Amino acid sequence: MNDQAGPFTPPSHNDIVAAGERLSAIAVRTPLLESAALNKAVGGRILLKAETLQHTGSFKFRGGYNFVSQLDEAQRRRGVVAYSSGNHAQGVAAAASLLGAPATIVMPSDAPSIKLDNTRALGANVVTYDRDSEPREEIAARLAAESGATLVPPYDHPWTIAGQGTVGLEIAEQAAERGVPPDDVLVCCGGGGLCAGIATVFAKVAPSTQIHTVEPDGFDDTAQSLARGQLVSNQPGGHSICDALLAPMPGALTFSINKRLVTGGLSVSDREVRRAMIFAWQTLKLVVEPGGAVALAAVLSGALDCHDRIVAVVLSGANVDAALFSEILNNSDAL
Amino acid sequence: MNDQAGPFTPPSHNDIVAAGERLSAIAVRTPLLESAALNKAVGGRILLKAETLQHTGSFKFRGGYNFVSQLDEAQRRRGVVAYSSGNHAQGVAAAASLLGAPATIVMPSDAPSIKLDNTRALGANVVTYDRDSEPREEIAARLAAESGATLVPPYDHPWTIAGQGTVGLEIAEQAAERGVPPDDVLVCCGGGGLCAGIATVFAKVAPSTQIHTVEPDGFDDTAQSLARGQLVSNQPGGHSICDALLAPMPGALTFSINKRLVTGGLSVSDREVRRAMIFAWQTLKLVVEPGGAVALAAVLSGALDCHDRIVAVVLSGANVDAALFSEILNNSDAL
Repeated sequence: MNDQAGPFTPPSHNDIVAAGERLSAIAVRTPLLESAALNKAVGGRILLKAETLQHTGSFKFRGGYNFVSQLDEAQRRRGVVAYSSGNHAQGVAAAASLLGAPATIVMPSDAPSIKLDNTRALGANVVTYDRDSEPREEIAARLAAESGATLVPPYDHPWTIAGQGTVGLEIAEQAAERGVPPDDVLVCCGGGGLCAGIATVFAKVAPSTQIHTVEPDGFDDTAQSLARGQLVSNQPGGHSICDALLAPMPGALTFSINKRLVTGGLSVSDREVRRAMIFAWQTLKLVVEPGGAVALAAVLSGALDCHDRIVAVVLSGANVDAALFSEILNNSDAL
Repeated sequence: MNDQAGPFTPPSHNDIVAAGERLSAIAVRTPLLESAALNKAVGGRILLKAETLQHTGSFKFRGGYNFVSQLDEAQRRRGVVAYSSGNHAQGVAAAASLLGAPATIVMPSDAPSIKLDNTRALGANVVTYDRDSEPREEIAARLAAESGATLVPPYDHPWTIAGQGTVGLEIAEQAAERGVPPDDVLVCCGGGGLCAGIATVFAKVAPSTQIHTVEPDGFDDTAQSLARGQLVSNQPGGHSICDALLAPMPGALTFSINKRLVTGGLSVSDREVRRAMIFAWQTLKLVVEPGGAVALAAVLSGALDCHDRIVAVVLSGANVDAALFSEILNNSDAL
């Protein structure tokens, strides 16, 4: 019996601290950056947690590594399976490679090439599916059952959440070292694992900090669910350039955490995301993918008023295709 | 009489420490980053000093601020003048703005738009000139004489070198904190101020460290001068995308330092620079301008063999126009 099968209880702050110890010699302690130009633009102090600089270009490595490292030798030998639009794919592939476990990753056939290519380059077996028709969870469950491999959930598991929550530990520590404890933390939200982990940390170490999810317009299932106090799915047919944030509804476990600990949910348009990506490129000098830029977009667009506040913003990922990136740079005048 | 008029003596290590104290609450202590993917690619440990994340997007802010902050009240009121292809322009403009001095900046009319626009946005009066005909030093000297303003030399002055050398202080400290003292430091080289400052630091704190300049092919005047032991100018008619590194010959002061302290000079082609910019974007997730990428290019191209070595690489600047940047991203297949 796998002890990573559900139902699950939320990870504690101590579980996240333990994940931080597992990751301490492995993951990048990504910098908490500040930009005078950004501070001036919004009239507050913005602390940018650059998870774009994490291994595999996103925070997903943290959850993947924390999960796979807790499998025993026999489990690792049978391998791991994950489904992912691309960042969890790379995070699990890199973690599995480091820990000697074969990895099979189920990815949408229209995922950004950079995500497909990088996942293969990390040694994983990539199985593609059609995003609009086949349920990826079922494909992954079938592959896992056939091979005896362990499924690594992208967000709705305490080990995944604890690993991702180490981002919150670092934000709190780095902000404290610099004497700028955040009033607010803005976190992108797909399935809600990163936010659940970060919110668990701040509930313990600085409970007055307000945690906000940020989602793309049309995919604000967490904001809707938080507002109504129950799980709500996105309306079908939405489109967004934020390929990393298209989960149809919050996770059961992540939502059980977020509904207790999160202040509320914001959403931003593709246009605001494009502007944020250009700002990151031009002014911050950082590459950020669409889904990784939503929290910055919320700051720049005024979705959250940052005036005279200290606001931590997670830049969660940076895996974007060159064609889309240059299209965005070249069309800045239209925004 | 201005005590910043020549002839000059090289700044001491203590002068650089004093500059570091002046800058400590003002400049960004830029992170020293490491990438598992880059380390694997070159078989060594590469420490990336991300001066791309400095105010105004390059290390030039450090020299500009250290210089202007040492002018007295009357001098500041009369203002400062600088000539620059764009990064020193922005660095001086930002420093002057912080210190309440009006700034006039002489820039080539074909400087990247981002550099011209940013310099104006920082409040400076920009005077453009034709790069191929008018001597910029003379224009700047005339403007300074007319207004009683102080010229801020881009590299050949001990205050400028000391400010820029604080990059070296931070590399040494950050590498020591992490227990990875560099065997080599690779520094881009235009006029040679950054390299002279960094070399002065390492000569004091870790004299066995080898310091190498990196220049664009056709603009390797420092490499040639180091090889011959005397000042050599570039051959006319060269072209490079590295607009920040086109100084015609080494500075008298910077060369007097570099010839004592630098191991030797490397050069890289535009093609190697383009590859390095793409690697930085795709794998490191950092924006780097052509001139800021030459040291990384030397590592990736094998111009310096990094196998089993610890090599610090300065990513010195990130001010590049969107059109050039996307052209480079979109033509990666041709490289």
